[in-house]
Amino acid sequence: MSNYDSIIAKIEQGKVKVGIIGLGYVGLPLAVSFAKKGIAVLGFEKSEKKAESVKAGKNYIQDIADADFAAVIAAGKLEATTDFSRIGECDAAIICVPTPLDKFKKPDMSYIEASCVDIARHMRHGTFISLESTTYPTTTEDFMKPIIERESGMKEGLDFWLCFSPERIDPGNKQYKTDNTPKVVGGLGEEATAIALALYGKAIEHLHSVSSPRAAEMVKILENTYRLINISLINELALLSGKMGINIWEVIEAAKTKPYGFQAFYPGPGIGGHCIPLDPFYLEYIAKGFNFDLTMINTAGNINNLMPYRMMNKISFALNRRGKAMNGAKLLFLGVAYKPDIDDARESPALLVMDECKKKLAQVSYHDPYIPEAQSEHGTRYVGIDLSDEVIESADCVIFATNHSSFDVERIVAKAALVVDLRNAVKSVHIEDGKVFKL
Amino acid sequence: MSNYDSIIAKIEQGKVKVGIIGLGYVGLPLAVSFAKKGIAVLGFEKSEKKAESVKAGKNYIQDIADADFAAVIAAGKLEATTDFSRIGECDAAIICVPTPLDKFKKPDMSYIEASCVDIARHMRHGTFISLESTTYPTTTEDFMKPIIERESGMKEGLDFWLCFSPERIDPGNKQYKTDNTPKVVGGLGEEATAIALALYGKAIEHLHSVSSPRAAEMVKILENTYRLINISLINELALLSGKMGINIWEVIEAAKTKPYGFQAFYPGPGIGGHCIPLDPFYLEYIAKGFNFDLTMINTAGNINNLMPYRMMNKISFALNRRGKAMNGAKLLFLGVAYKPDIDDARESPALLVMDECKKKLAQVSYHDPYIPEAQSEHGTRYVGIDLSDEVIESADCVIFATNHSSFDVERIVAKAALVVDLRNAVKSVHIEDGKVFKL
Repeated sequence: MSNYDSIIAKIEQGKVKVGIIGLGYVGLPLAVSFAKKGIAVLGFEKSEKKAESVKAGKNYIQDIADADFAAVIAAGKLEATTDFSRIGECDAAIICVPTPLDKFKKPDMSYIEASCVDIARHMRHGTFISLESTTYPTTTEDFMKPIIERESGMKEGLDFWLCFSPERIDPGNKQYKTDNTPKVVGGLGEEATAIALALYGKAIEHLHSVSSPRAAEMVKILENTYRLINISLINELALLSGKMGINIWEVIEAAKTKPYGFQAFYPGPGIGGHCIPLDPFYLEYIAKGFNFDLTMINTAGNINNLMPYRMMNKISFALNRRGKAMNGAKLLFLGVAYKPDIDDARESPALLVMDECKKKLAQVSYHDPYIPEAQSEHGTRYVGIDLSDEVIESADCVIFATNHSSFDVERIVAKAALVVDLRNAVKSVHIEDGKVFKL
Repeated sequence: MSNYDSIIAKIEQGKVKVGIIGLGYVGLPLAVSFAKKGIAVLGFEKSEKKAESVKAGKNYIQDIADADFAAVIAAGKLEATTDFSRIGECDAAIICVPTPLDKFKKPDMSYIEASCVDIARHMRHGTFISLESTTYPTTTEDFMKPIIERESGMKEGLDFWLCFSPERIDPGNKQYKTDNTPKVVGGLGEEATAIALALYGKAIEHLHSVSSPRAAEMVKILENTYRLINISLINELALLSGKMGINIWEVIEAAKTKPYGFQAFYPGPGIGGHCIPLDPFYLEYIAKGFNFDLTMINTAGNINNLMPYRMMNKISFALNRRGKAMNGAKLLFLGVAYKPDIDDARESPALLVMDECKKKLAQVSYHDPYIPEAQSEHGTRYVGIDLSDEVIESADCVIFATNHSSFDVERIVAKAALVVDLRNAVKSVHIEDGKVFKL
């Protein structure tokens, strides 16, 4: 039996064993999705703490239902290890590691590279390898393939297969989880695509194949570049609207009544999360290699980069109306998660606004029901405080930075001396009393 | 009875008479929508030809059903005139005149200004005035109101009311016409908004009010700026994808499988029509008055401006593969309308590509089933030709510039020596023979 026939048969019989490299917010939900369908999953994780947590049956990802997690552990379908030599046990290896940007916005490929080396050194003949980490187009074919061939001595398309299948995790999304979000796959060659469809088909409801890994890589970038530029546009229009006495939130609600050709985006203090602030810059990086200048991404990036500074200005001007300087002002930020109702503050613009205000010598504190402490990109550490009446009343300015649905906006506005609302938490269009200032 | 009570009563009784200034692709459908509901409409039109056409019961707008038009004329509910003194007969005046940009992208307000003067000099006390023409925020309040007060000697809010209600006409849209497209209204003051809701409610199914004319003005700009920047983004990504060996059309189809947070836009030779290439630049104009630089619009505009030149390059490189120069090459363009299946070539990017190729000494001809002759922005006149086999075979290159659904793509590709496809008319992802080049 050929390698190809063998892996297809194993998948069809449900006897395939899937290795998942990286048990973070992408890898662990995917592992649970496979395991729920009875597929044996072996998770590989550098962090001893995470691996131990999985072994102990302790779920650490908000989007996974604890019951699902407990069930797959009890059934023995999900195992975790820090021992990468065990990749030899697996028929497939799915890479779900981070691809951060360094501070010069250059992609850090070290996690993907290390995964390729680990896999190549331990895999069997006939292993299917799929990358899910967002990265620049050409990565699978031009970056991964040579590393794996060199380290394994095997030949792509014959001894192993390569595929790119972008993760589409939307943290906090109640409707779309790993298994019911359509998934794009792009194999290198027809066999790779066929294996990808067979394998992912076990765990994911809808698959869509494209003709190459680089097309699949571009799909993810397009999706998130779309979001970056539209958020940047609405941020720019929000700043202009503020100057023109127009309530941008009211404008967006009205534009949404157009039944075709419009999708609403909302302004805010900047863009957070692991995807939108990063993904477009992978493309910008590779585009430079083609002597191509991505002007839309570049412009959108500039707007986004300036938002925390501009938000600090908004707060400063609000204080100024009360005759107060930023220097020494007591500022209370509400919400530091990068979007509502989640417990994740990485890349959070709220923290960058806090940093800017601190630089101008304000006394900054924050409250977030989901995040007891946080560290900004610049390394400043913040510890959250409780939201007592006294805390609200003693602040010179209260800033809505993330609109968690649990905030009692009415109470907060009633108690606060001054409010800067960066998220339309205070819905009223006309605010007559000069107490609430909006982005 | 107050002026306000009087106009509200007339509207409720269906006895209101509506004047519509400008019987173009916005005004005439709106006139028919009112007239269909039994409201008497008097259309004002500078063009003797258009006014005569209406009087003769001859419809000249593709989006109006001929039967509807005939019915309202037969019922005596729609009249047209070139005599603006008859505005005195009307209870309401709705302005639907053009707001072009001059070649320095400065808004030409002369049509709105002339309408204001005409209305102000002839209107009765208690007239409701609504502007539908797309324009920059503040126009209704800061530009129109002073002209009308000066010319009429009347007082806004007391003797007449002002409103902005953006037209949302999408030429060729089979589903959404004037009456079933939700309409935004923003009156100056509560009475104006109440009258607007009552009056437009007679003809339009869904209304959405905002707190001011300037908010309503911004709504329309937001809708079309959204489209400009997304089309510009996808055009830029299409150009990069071409260099990287990625089929952008395939990428877009795959991205569309994301069930949230994505809306597909398609690349093309540039942006046409009366709205998207213009509207964002009204905002850019007024923003300068606020010392505000709209970088997203500016960047998007630059991409769009360069597209015809880049498309000429695409054609030139395709010819070059065949050892042919642009100089003297016979080029056949298919479709010059600015979008599929409509008969409108104004602001059409196809004509600009043709101009660029002509400048490089190509022999340019075109075929469009809906447009027998056309003139580019630069003033070049083109006369369409029939699409015989001989015409296709004798061309050095056939260019799909607009994807009219009536084109027999298979036949055209079979007969053509070389094809440049700017609209994904040729659907196959892999084109092996080097005959078809895609944007």
